Amino acid sequence: MFYNDKGRPTVEWLSALEAEAATRRAAGLRRELVPRDPGDPVVDLAGNDYLGLSRHPEVLAAAAQALLDFGLGATGSRLVRGSTAAHRDLEAGLAGLLGFERALVYSSGYLANLGAVRTLARPGALVVSDAHNHASLIDGCRLARCETVVAPHQDPDFVRRELSRHPGRPAVVVTESIFSVDGDLAPLPELYEVTSAHGAVLLVDDAHALGVIGPSGAGGVAAAGLSGAPGLVVTATLSKSLGAAGGVIAGPRQLHRELLDTGRTFIFDTALPPAVAAGALTALRLLESGDDLRAELHARARRAVERLRSEGLEVSEPAGGVISVAAPSPDEAYAWAAACRERGVAVGCFRPPSTPDGRSRLRLTIGVGVPAADFDQAVDIIAKERP
Amino acid sequence: MFYNDKGRPTVEWLSALEAEAATRRAAGLRRELVPRDPGDPVVDLAGNDYLGLSRHPEVLAAAAQALLDFGLGATGSRLVRGSTAAHRDLEAGLAGLLGFERALVYSSGYLANLGAVRTLARPGALVVSDAHNHASLIDGCRLARCETVVAPHQDPDFVRRELSRHPGRPAVVVTESIFSVDGDLAPLPELYEVTSAHGAVLLVDDAHALGVIGPSGAGGVAAAGLSGAPGLVVTATLSKSLGAAGGVIAGPRQLHRELLDTGRTFIFDTALPPAVAAGALTALRLLESGDDLRAELHARARRAVERLRSEGLEVSEPAGGVISVAAPSPDEAYAWAAACRERGVAVGCFRPPSTPDGRSRLRLTIGVGVPAADFDQAVDIIAKERP
Ligand SMILES: Cc1ncc(COP(=O)(O)O)c(C=O)c1O
Ligand SMILES: Cc1ncc(COP(=O)(O)O)c(C=O)c1O
Repeated sequence: MFYNDKGRPTVEWLSALEAEAATRRAAGLRRELVPRDPGDPVVDLAGNDYLGLSRHPEVLAAAAQALLDFGLGATGSRLVRGSTAAHRDLEAGLAGLLGFERALVYSSGYLANLGAVRTLARPGALVVSDAHNHASLIDGCRLARCETVVAPHQDPDFVRRELSRHPGRPAVVVTESIFSVDGDLAPLPELYEVTSAHGAVLLVDDAHALGVIGPSGAGGVAAAGLSGAPGLVVTATLSKSLGAAGGVIAGPRQLHRELLDTGRTFIFDTALPPAVAAGALTALRLLESGDDLRAELHARARRAVERLRSEGLEVSEPAGGVISVAAPSPDEAYAWAAACRERGVAVGCFRPPSTPDGRSRLRLTIGVGVPAADFDQAVDIIAKERP
Repeated sequence: MFYNDKGRPTVEWLSALEAEAATRRAAGLRRELVPRDPGDPVVDLAGNDYLGLSRHPEVLAAAAQALLDFGLGATGSRLVRGSTAAHRDLEAGLAGLLGFERALVYSSGYLANLGAVRTLARPGALVVSDAHNHASLIDGCRLARCETVVAPHQDPDFVRRELSRHPGRPAVVVTESIFSVDGDLAPLPELYEVTSAHGAVLLVDDAHALGVIGPSGAGGVAAAGLSGAPGLVVTATLSKSLGAAGGVIAGPRQLHRELLDTGRTFIFDTALPPAVAAGALTALRLLESGDDLRAELHARARRAVERLRSEGLEVSEPAGGVISVAAPSPDEAYAWAAACRERGVAVGCFRPPSTPDGRSRLRLTIGVGVPAADFDQAVDIIAKERP
């Protein structure tokens, strides 16, 4: 029987994986899944629930009602099974807030980014991608199979020079607004000036800026006054400040049409569950009216940066709810995060290959759902547990 | 202001998209989102809710409870935010049912497939991929950036010859078990014999077979007696017979370790919402004890095939819950599906580029959640509305 076959080849495959795992372990690069319990008193400075909406009673009530109305899964692509009112209103609401003609919702931000980059990077196009871009954008560049140039982080002059080397060539410049690694903000007006002058498309991933900056929390593109600008396309996730799951691409109606007709990660993927769409829709209304939450978030970010810098730590300059703190090595980053966890504080620990520059960091996120006193105490603990 | 800039370049970009849309429209290849209302009396032969579990009261109750316990979104990757008991039990349950050491749950089947192909296709490997494979497997091959050979559909001899041209070279053979397009079953024992002899890995996407065939609904790999076989890896979705959303990779513990440490579509993606994981876990128990549901599904598939063939239609031989019926052209396929919809029956309509061979089809799925009388009447309507 095949079932009991313990032949040579399979063993080779697995021993190659084992050797790599041993190397990673030696370099302090192993990752572990830890339990998450409902009653866990841990103070969360690791998740992306910036406005605390994932637990908002109105969000939960909307999701629970849609569960009853439609069941759990969407049971197919929306092209096959149709769009619930929650999907449609969510798209209309996101298009309105982001200031574009149309928005299309995906089952994840990851798949939205794959779809956006691939559709915008037309055959023969040049893609210029910021060195700190998220894995989903990088994978989008790989899937597009166009020539991709990685631009140094935050360097519009590099982008300008690169585009000017290819006059008339279709091009896409890809960036995040607030970067997920260090929480810094891309120079969007400068980048847009560069792409407009060349006739390139600027693709901005607003994942960490939606709900956090901009008028009514409309994000980094809106904060730069670029909502709906020609030649600009925005993606975002529904999994961060909206406290839900899913992703979105917002842009002109012609792009929406192209994505519906040809976008593989939309057409060939089961739709976002109706209950998640309904919860995200309610969260969107709360996000838009959440200026007080945003003020609180920025005040906390300021306090945390000052406290950590006062300890001599190397801390990024946050534009929103992400703060990174340099760690001496992957091992020490891991031990630091573990010590915080031991004392009841969850923080992110970014080590290679998750870091674009090979440097390890703690990554703190500000969620206003955390009680203020707990938050300040957590920052204190992080400072005290430094390696 | 940039906002009002209506410069030349942007217009060029959009007019290229408009020209393509016009070509697609002329070829009958446009896709439209239609509304889905909770009270809609449509009979669904389009979704993938094979066992009707998406609306099972126990599934909904489990999801609703997890909503209260954890909120709506997972708020981050599980490596950052931890695994709820639902995530852990779901993985243990899937590993057990599929018969592998470990299972890892993803936010979608699409991202699971991208992760599986990329991780298995090691540098320098040869990838051999069935011509009917799903878009997510194809995109996985593209992301892997290995040489990929597309094998004619269901052709183990081709695969053998291709592998034997590369003795000693690491290789991955990629196939679905029950194919999503025509519902036919891959020759898994023959393929496994070929891959074992070469020392290649066989990756099987069991998306449409999980819950539908095999002991306790364990899927196509289990039905072939290959559960847990060395050199074999299985993926599946939680979005079809489990009635939920998400995906899974099942395999040996060394693969699980590799995916946790390096798998980009796991590490850099927000986890499946706890409520969805909890619903899927309950659905898994119901699926395992659902032999009666499976018997009913196969009886319906048989009846539908006979009825449609009796009209002289060209109908695929279904191994599970997917039946395809040939249509003369994309336009006629679209009109046929629209006529059925008009008469209250939703069917899938597959046209290029969703069809691997450029032929258009109606695609019917058997869901035992549909009342039997409605089902038979729906098949009648499909037969009568033929072009
Ligand atoms: C900048 C950025 N883009 C995209 C994503 C992917 O979104 P999702 O988790 O919804 O797939 C993330 C994080 O997960 C992100 O940080
Ligand atoms: C064979 C197959 N694999 C993978 C997928 C993707 O799964 P998901 O919709 O959960 O992303 C699908 C369908 O959607 C499929 O039919």
